[in-house]
Formats: sequence, C-alpha cells, structure tokens
Amino acid sequence: MAGKELYVSAPGKVILHGEHAVVHGKVALAVGLNLRTFLRLKPSRDKNTMKINLPNIGAKLSWNISDLQTLVPSFQECEPVSPSPEQLDILKTFAGVSSGTKDTESLAILAFLYLYLSICGQLRRLPSLEIVVWSQLPTGAGLGSSAAYSVSLVAALLTASEKISYPAQDNIETARWTQNELTLVNGWAFQGEKVIHGNPSGVDNAVGTWGGALRYQAGQITPIERVPMLQILLTNTRVPRSTKTLVAGVKDKLLKYPNIMEPVLSSINAISEECQRVLQAAVDGLSKEHYSVLEELIDINQHHLNVIGVGHPSLDRLCQVTASHGLHSKLTGAGGGGCAITLLQPDIQPTVVDAAKQQLSDCGYQCWETSIGAPGVSLQSSSSLPEEVTRSLNTA
Amino acid sequence: MAGKELYVSAPGKVILHGEHAVVHGKVALAVGLNLRTFLRLKPSRDKNTMKINLPNIGAKLSWNISDLQTLVPSFQECEPVSPSPEQLDILKTFAGVSSGTKDTESLAILAFLYLYLSICGQLRRLPSLEIVVWSQLPTGAGLGSSAAYSVSLVAALLTASEKISYPAQDNIETARWTQNELTLVNGWAFQGEKVIHGNPSGVDNAVGTWGGALRYQAGQITPIERVPMLQILLTNTRVPRSTKTLVAGVKDKLLKYPNIMEPVLSSINAISEECQRVLQAAVDGLSKEHYSVLEELIDINQHHLNVIGVGHPSLDRLCQVTASHGLHSKLTGAGGGGCAITLLQPDIQPTVVDAAKQQLSDCGYQCWETSIGAPGVSLQSSSSLPEEVTRSLNTA
Repeated sequence: MAGKELYVSAPGKVILHGEHAVVHGKVALAVGLNLRTFLRLKPSRDKNTMKINLPNIGAKLSWNISDLQTLVPSFQECEPVSPSPEQLDILKTFAGVSSGTKDTESLAILAFLYLYLSICGQLRRLPSLEIVVWSQLPTGAGLGSSAAYSVSLVAALLTASEKISYPAQDNIETARWTQNELTLVNGWAFQGEKVIHGNPSGVDNAVGTWGGALRYQAGQITPIERVPMLQILLTNTRVPRSTKTLVAGVKDKLLKYPNIMEPVLSSINAISEECQRVLQAAVDGLSKEHYSVLEELIDINQHHLNVIGVGHPSLDRLCQVTASHGLHSKLTGAGGGGCAITLLQPDIQPTVVDAAKQQLSDCGYQCWETSIGAPGVSLQSSSSLPEEVTRSLNTA
Repeated sequence: MAGKELYVSAPGKVILHGEHAVVHGKVALAVGLNLRTFLRLKPSRDKNTMKINLPNIGAKLSWNISDLQTLVPSFQECEPVSPSPEQLDILKTFAGVSSGTKDTESLAILAFLYLYLSICGQLRRLPSLEIVVWSQLPTGAGLGSSAAYSVSLVAALLTASEKISYPAQDNIETARWTQNELTLVNGWAFQGEKVIHGNPSGVDNAVGTWGGALRYQAGQITPIERVPMLQILLTNTRVPRSTKTLVAGVKDKLLKYPNIMEPVLSSINAISEECQRVLQAAVDGLSKEHYSVLEELIDINQHHLNVIGVGHPSLDRLCQVTASHGLHSKLTGAGGGGCAITLLQPDIQPTVVDAAKQQLSDCGYQCWETSIGAPGVSLQSSSSLPEEVTRSLNTA
C-alpha cells in the first residue's frame, strides 16, 4: 500500500443484555455501536518522523524514526503476544510516562507505541506515518472507545505494513478484511487493550473487529450470524460510576439473598437467549411482533438490573422520560449511572425521537441517535466519511 | 350472653408478599390489616324483629322473626357446611334478590341470612337482634372487607347463641376466643365468603379470624407465630382492575417466556420465605437491619410484579412519590392499579408521613396510616372503640 492514504473506522460497543450476569457465568450479548472511531493514516512528508494526533484528548506527538528504531529489537513480534512488563517499562521510559499511570493520553500513547513497534518492527525500517484518530465515542463511558482505538490502529498498521491486504476497490465506499485477517486484527487489538486496561475481557476488541452481535459466556466469545441493525438512542447520564464497586455490590447481594438473586440471574440469562433467538429468527427483517418482544425484554431486564442493585435515579428518570414517549430503555454496561439504550422502531415518527432527545438533553444527559449491530472494523473511502469526520480528521 | 350488647371487630387483609406467584404454587404471606370491620349486636327491643344495618352501603333491613322461622327447617346445621344451591335459592326468594346478582348489598344480606339461620336455627326460637356493621375498609379493593364482615357476624352470632364463650372480663378492652372457638368462627365465616364469592381461597376469612400473618401455599393455610405489627401506609390508587384478567395475563407471560418468568416466580417465593424468616427472627422487635431487609424485599418484589405484568402507571407514580420521601412501596393483591403498602419505620418523623400522605392524596389516591400483623377477630368493650366507630355504629 506504500504511499497510499487510508481511512479506517471501528465501532464502539454496548451490552444489549447480560451485563453483570456475565460475571456469574451467564450469557451476555455485546453489539457493535455505530458511534465509530475513525483513523486516517498517510505516509509522512518528513521521512524521519512518526506523528500521531488524537484530537479528542488534545494529544499530538511526534518522534524521530531513528529514535524509535532503537526500541525495535525488544518488539519484533510475528504473532500477537501479551505485552511483557519489560516492554511496557521500555515504552514508559521512552514516552516519559510514569509507572502505574491511568491517564487516558499516556495509555493511548503506550498502546500506540506497543502496536506500532510490534507490528512494524519486522520491516526493514519503521515507516514514517501521520496518523489521526478521532472518535464519536465518549471515553470512559463503557462504550469500548479504547478497543475501537486499538482495533482501528491495528487494522491500519497491518494494512500499511502489508501484513493484511488492502481490501478496497474503486467505487466501493467501505471494505472489510477476510476472516483470517480480522482474527489477526483482533489478536493485536486485544494486546492494545491489555496495555490500556491490564486485564480486559476481550469482548470490546472482538466487537470492534467483527461488529454485529457477539455472545459472551464464561470467557468464550462467539459471533452471532446475520444480526439486523437496530436503531437506538444511546444516552449518557454522565453520572460517574465505578464498575468495580457495582460488580462487588452485585456479589454482596448474591451472598446476602442467594435464593432471591440466583433466579434473577437465570432470568437475565434467558433474556439474552430469547433476544438472540429473536434477532436470528428475523432473517427477513424484524416484524412488529419481534420489536414488541425486544421492547419487553428491555423492560424486564431493566427491572432485573434494579433488583441486583445497579440501577440509579438518573436511569429511572431516563426510563420515565422515554416511556412517556412510548419508548423502552435499559441501562447498558456497569449501571449505577453511565449509559442506557432506548430501542427505536423503524417506523417511529421523527418528532417523537426529537422530543425524547430534547427532554433527555434537558435532564443534562448526552444523547445520540445511532444504531447497534453495526459493522466491525472497515476500510473506508474518503468520500464515504461523514463531513463531521472529514473535518475532524483533516483539521486536527 | 342473653340480653347483653356486644361489640366485635375483625381486621382486613393484605398480601405482604406472594400475590400472583401463589396461583402457581408459590408461598404467599397474608397479614391482618388494622383497618377493621366493627359490629354491634344487641337484643332487639321488639321481640319479633331481626334488624340489620350496614351504613357503609346504606342498607337497613328488618324481618319478622316469625317469617324467618319458616325458613329454619332448611338451615339447621351443627357444623359449618357449604351453602347448597337450594338453600341459596330459598334465601334469594325470601330476600327478593335476583339470581346471579353481584350487587354488594344483596350478597351481604344473603350471607347474613345464611349465617343467622344456620347458626341460630337450632335454638328454640330465632333471637330478635339489632346488628350494625360498619367498616373502615373500602369494599372491592382486595382488602378482605367481605371476610371481615363474615367473620365479625359469625363471631357475634356464635357468641349470642352461646355456641362459643363470651370471653370478655371486666376492665379488659379486647378479648379473644380460644383456638377451637376461632376454628369454628373461621369455618362458618368461610361459608359466608362462599355465599358472597362462590369459590373463595379461604385466606381472607383465616386472616380475619386469626389476624397476624398467615402462610398460604397450594391451598394450605398456616398461621405464623409471633409476628410483630408493622406500621404502614395503605394506599388505594382507585384504579379499578380485574383480578381475573391480571391472573390470566401472568399465565400468558409464563407461557410466552417460561425461562424468563419461572425464575421470577421462584425469586418471589424466596422473598416470602425471607420475609417470614425476618419477621419470626425479630422476637425482641425489629432492628434497623430487619427493617432495611424488609424494605429491600418490598422493592425487589415490586420490580418482579412489574416483570410479570401486573404493574400500572398509578403504582409507578405511587412508588416514586413514596421513594421521594425515602419510603418503600409495593402493590398488594391483584395489582394493575388497586392498593399498595408502604412500610413505615417506627422512628419515622410524623412530618415525613404527613408529607407523603398529602402528596398521595394530591395524586387522587386514598391513603390510610395503619398497621399490618393486626390481631384477628376480637370482642371489644364499648370504651375501647375509637370515637369514629362508636359514632358510626350508634348513629347508623
């Protein structure tokens, strides 16, 4: 691909059903969220410079290729492997990042350096590139923004270093890689996630890579075939929460009331199974009846999530607001605030959606009209990019 | 007791936990509600007249004893037995009630006549009595008003006809009968309920008779020993509902989503068990921790009742209002509107209770500050009666 400019995008992730229950061995359904992370990669005009620009977090860095080249002996990997503590120490020293940092910019830079050196280290010389990554996803909201970052970086670097093909053809707006190539993308993206999160589940990068819907249970991730896209509102209550504390709270409730809580987890498991069944049954698109089942499952699960203690007044308010417009919502992810999804039927009146969005904004929430079941990492033609994206990538 | 005036009261009933689940073989807890039905019985000054006065429904009837005496041959029963269709036909003809009536007044009169003739028919001559029954309970709200009526009537008639003792002693405000006597009261009251409801479960009359708390499962009714009284708000949303339709709706959901719904019923069963455990563990009164468990069980069950489809916007509103005052509520009985209970801790500020009551009234709901775990049917001294009761019984 030498010399080519390329654009890559990867979706975010939401949990459709099964959050928290998945910690206790139940099925969760994770789906691609069509709020995407976009990446532009082009050869640098300056042949001795590697530049990365992350406008969402105001980070703009560049390094001398010759300096980076000195690190290569520690990183040449043929296969995706876990970053070793020694490798991370080398990168931290190089980037001037203090040990144990949780700062978004530092982690993003460490992940980039790890992936760049590991993937491109076997080339005769490290390529000098200009990379811009801009995302529609908020960070730290449980929407898989770090995975979308890793996935798009990996896909672009593997393509640029010709380890995977350049799938685009003329006049095709978006193109995807083969299953084997995607497996490689996912493998490396998982390593990027490890740099950022330490011990990630692997679900977020799998969704970022494959998109659609994935079934996740007891550490096993299985893509679900032929899942339709669903229109949703994604709402961020902006109420901060600690996933760790919420997970611990659920465990405490299970210990306190095992006979009351275990059945609730079983019921959540059955909701995930039923949802998967409906999505897969809808080969010719979802009927009105399918939608009404999906709505019912959302309502039931939201009650269950309240029962296991991960609700929040901000989420109750959100559910009330959307219910007043005839819409059905549940929290997604950790709960205790955070984000929620609201299902939109295809024939919904735009005025209803606008009214709901306005009222949610009036509550101080951030609200996106988007979709789930979104495609995974894609190579995009520049003409296929929304104007907002082109502007953000080019003016960064 | 010949010649004595006597006052009897019997409590209403609420389901604390297990409504609907009980239809599917799970445990329900029914408790005495301290909204009571009061009865005054005194010998009639006119020796040939039997008078009954039901001021709540504006019914005031009297019959000639000699006319009633002609019916006696069809009714002399030693033991409580089910009213036969022939007996009911005789009573309907006598009272001028059309067949198949569901009118409250007609059913109350038929039940009175059945109980009066059956219990007093073996006496040499039917006693001429003046009976007034006045209740704090609304009718048709699922609060066991008909059972409280039957129970208080039976206790008064059995006492007046000396089939059970007159348990009151001087200076004792309320007195109760022996277990054997109560078993007889309950047996007859169940027959009264059959006249009114056709095929009652027997729970309402058992609660009216024994009060406290009863465990009900698969047709078996077991009193729970030593249950503390709990202060509550009882709120009637005044939203009418059909128990039959709601029960059918739950069954439909169970058939549609067995794997999702069966565990919810199991969880409700465990809530009833846990609630019973807490109530029985609280020998020395309920601690702060006990109350917080009871509150948690109420919240969880209210979510479950929504999941099985018996919630209602009026109940959601009620729960929101009470939650805004830090109080915990659940529907009681059939749901789909109807009544709810709100637990009050003993040390609650009266201003908080008043504010909650005011706000519930502003929603158009009817609200009582009362208690559950109330004693069963009791003989009362006239001085023990609340002024409101004395006035209602004496001016009727």
